[in-house]
Amino acid sequence: MVDERSEAKGPVTKLVPEGDERERLVCTDCGFINYINPKIVVGAVATWEDRFLLCKRAIPPRLGYWTLPAGFMEEGESTQDGAAREAWEEARARIEIGPLLGVYNIPRISQVQMIYRARLLSDEISAGPESEDVGLFTWDEIPWDEIAFPTVHWAFAHYRETLGQGEFAPRSEMPMGV
Amino acid sequence: MVDERSEAKGPVTKLVPEGDERERLVCTDCGFINYINPKIVVGAVATWEDRFLLCKRAIPPRLGYWTLPAGFMEEGESTQDGAAREAWEEARARIEIGPLLGVYNIPRISQVQMIYRARLLSDEISAGPESEDVGLFTWDEIPWDEIAFPTVHWAFAHYRETLGQGEFAPRSEMPMGV
Ligand SMILES: [Zn+2]
Ligand SMILES: [Zn+2]
Repeated sequence: MVDERSEAKGPVTKLVPEGDERERLVCTDCGFINYINPKIVVGAVATWEDRFLLCKRAIPPRLGYWTLPAGFMEEGESTQDGAAREAWEEARARIEIGPLLGVYNIPRISQVQMIYRARLLSDEISAGPESEDVGLFTWDEIPWDEIAFPTVHWAFAHYRETLGQGEFAPRSEMPMGV
Repeated sequence: MVDERSEAKGPVTKLVPEGDERERLVCTDCGFINYINPKIVVGAVATWEDRFLLCKRAIPPRLGYWTLPAGFMEEGESTQDGAAREAWEEARARIEIGPLLGVYNIPRISQVQMIYRARLLSDEISAGPESEDVGLFTWDEIPWDEIAFPTVHWAFAHYRETLGQGEFAPRSEMPMGV
């Protein structure tokens, strides 16, 4: 019986490297150690007057559901620059980043999401390659039953909660299911 | 003439992978693509009464200089858990994590540092393997001329600035040289 996993290439073998205390994924071909670091997701609750920017996902997971413009932070940028870049990539929206709204830890998938409040600089938006559609919705128009991720619900709740507050502490993750 | 770089193993070759827009480090042996993500450093300004916890570094960089307990966030933990773990690893200190004091972006080295305010649960501390010494210093006793990193200066400044404030927005990186 052939173990198909043994044919996988790259750092797919679990080992505790010398001098380390934790199991890491190592490549038995070339010896490369893949330290898996938590990943930072940056995004924004971006508004134009009383309307909120949402993107309908053109890619899995949660294809066809609505989400905030957000994605993995890239090398060499700040969290704010990353959040603005994602709004451009996913919704062709130019935004001005405001205060840090939430820091959502999701240890199960080793993610830290950093969501900012932001203002659209114009209401000219259009779907980027990862979006099927984009839209500006009033609070009551938000497609609440077609939201892609719990973090989007959290960010909207925290947006409301901190609205009108000058300085506030960023909010944290909520129990799953909220 | 032999190009020594061609003998290096692992993902050391710069290429734009198919379907990507950016250069990544790729392993030409096994095809593994090393997406370099920004790394999260978690740490704390931890106090016992009017004294601050500092660790004298036993490892490079900045060996022999004093720093806050801080280090790379690990898989499967929250930012708060990571900051508490680092205080234990570096100073055998048990701490209770408070509000987020600063989010310091350092794009040049693709780091996001998240520094919390924290309280020591006892003044029993001792040097962990990466520390040559640990200490509890009053503000005036802090070895200001022997501080390892600019971020330590920023965190102390922001600690002072936000002291006594109930709810506050986390502070940001400062121009280098401050
Ligand atoms: Zn390999
Ligand atoms: Zn390889």
